[in-house]
Amino acid sequence: MAVDNQEFSNYIALANRLADEASKETLPRFRNKTEVFNKAGLWFDPVTNADRESERAIRRMIKMVYPRHAIHGEEFGEELGKNPDGDEDSSPWRWVIDPIDGTRAFVCGVPSWMTLIALEHEKKPVLGLLDQPFTGERWVGTREETKYYHRDNVKICKTSTITQLDKARITTTDPRRVQGYFDASEAEAFRELSKATRLARFSMDAYGYALLAHGELEIVLESGLSHHDYAALEPVVLGAGGVFTNWSGDPVGTDERGEVLACANHELHQKALVFLR
Amino acid sequence: MAVDNQEFSNYIALANRLADEASKETLPRFRNKTEVFNKAGLWFDPVTNADRESERAIRRMIKMVYPRHAIHGEEFGEELGKNPDGDEDSSPWRWVIDPIDGTRAFVCGVPSWMTLIALEHEKKPVLGLLDQPFTGERWVGTREETKYYHRDNVKICKTSTITQLDKARITTTDPRRVQGYFDASEAEAFRELSKATRLARFSMDAYGYALLAHGELEIVLESGLSHHDYAALEPVVLGAGGVFTNWSGDPVGTDERGEVLACANHELHQKALVFLR
Repeated sequence: MAVDNQEFSNYIALANRLADEASKETLPRFRNKTEVFNKAGLWFDPVTNADRESERAIRRMIKMVYPRHAIHGEEFGEELGKNPDGDEDSSPWRWVIDPIDGTRAFVCGVPSWMTLIALEHEKKPVLGLLDQPFTGERWVGTREETKYYHRDNVKICKTSTITQLDKARITTTDPRRVQGYFDASEAEAFRELSKATRLARFSMDAYGYALLAHGELEIVLESGLSHHDYAALEPVVLGAGGVFTNWSGDPVGTDERGEVLACANHELHQKALVFLR
Repeated sequence: MAVDNQEFSNYIALANRLADEASKETLPRFRNKTEVFNKAGLWFDPVTNADRESERAIRRMIKMVYPRHAIHGEEFGEELGKNPDGDEDSSPWRWVIDPIDGTRAFVCGVPSWMTLIALEHEKKPVLGLLDQPFTGERWVGTREETKYYHRDNVKICKTSTITQLDKARITTTDPRRVQGYFDASEAEAFRELSKATRLARFSMDAYGYALLAHGELEIVLESGLSHHDYAALEPVVLGAGGVFTNWSGDPVGTDERGEVLACANHELHQKALVFLR
């Protein structure tokens, strides 16, 4: 990566400030009868004021500090960076933000929603930040290291060393055949894989990947994810020693379905891939 | 209830102390690679040291303060109260405790497990306490009032006023046909009811009932619950204005399956019952 350490440290510091700023918009609206409406029309996709206001706050701050950087956000799409003369610039840096991942959790009062912030360098996510302001937890990954912050505690995250499927803990956000998640064959694939594991938990969205990085879960299997859903996850999972691919073992984003298979280690990843073939 | 207010206040104070004491055994073991083993043999039922040690701590404290009270706990079963001469006593009071409800959540690092403490008077649960020490949240219900404690905040809980099924949020711990949860027809009933609702979330155990009391969810539908799972839930749900029955509208515990249908209000409860007939 053509960037010095000091510059990258500044980016990490900014990511933390962005998350702090976002939480001022999200947290006061959490469990506070936030207005919820249907954006897509076709199926229920809750978007709250918290979502939009926090993305606005994040964009404002990025543009103030790094006007040349591009921004891609869940709510307001893509903005190219500007150079000081106002022309479009081709900065290699792009921030990818999902102000509230897990809007369903948010509207049900469940503190597993997260603010996701990724920084990409030439399309590769090199920094990922997952923030849960109600519990006061934050995971920051750089592909090489993942740190966990909880109030005054900081720790280095390492994924689980469990390599046997029948001892593995698996999660997916929704195991059913539901629009936006699994189709029929994906739901069946999850069913088969999860049967081979020790136990399954659901409804965690990005929080599941955070727990995988934390060493508390071994497998996350999902489909239907968008770029803003997964960009921040990769640096966090890799930084803790995990594996992050699609269901064929290829890079996430190279299939049409938005598949993700995240595993605690390579051995388990190979075993999971066998079930998905 | 043949008990004066001061006496009942003392019981509430004890319940809070019991939860504080339990958290000293649970919280340090949470996300700390607690040893997990299979108790039942037949299927995975994680029981941690945290579970047993916190129940021991709770029992010790109850016996010290109210030796005549009976105790029923998930880990160590039933103990009758003793009178000072050492004979068995027939106190109308019984404490029902589940030191870690949601052991699956616990072993996956998910902060939705709870310590459940109920006090029954002549078999009727008159006090329920649900504690989540990682998030610092506690719900205390007396059938007439439910209070929520979160760090320095206290608030009175009121259930949601949503009466339309298609606006209701539903939860169950596991929507699949899984031993210990739904059988095939129950899973089908959940599927049908949840299709009529706005959205479904999973894997919350007792935390789902806490969120129902909080006004954040409207329906919890479960089966396979034991006495220690639901005793503390009823005073919390009722105290916030909710309804708490089995799938036939009868008192929980009067069927063979351990069914629970908790709803935010009577109108929604009637509509949900129609689906379960």
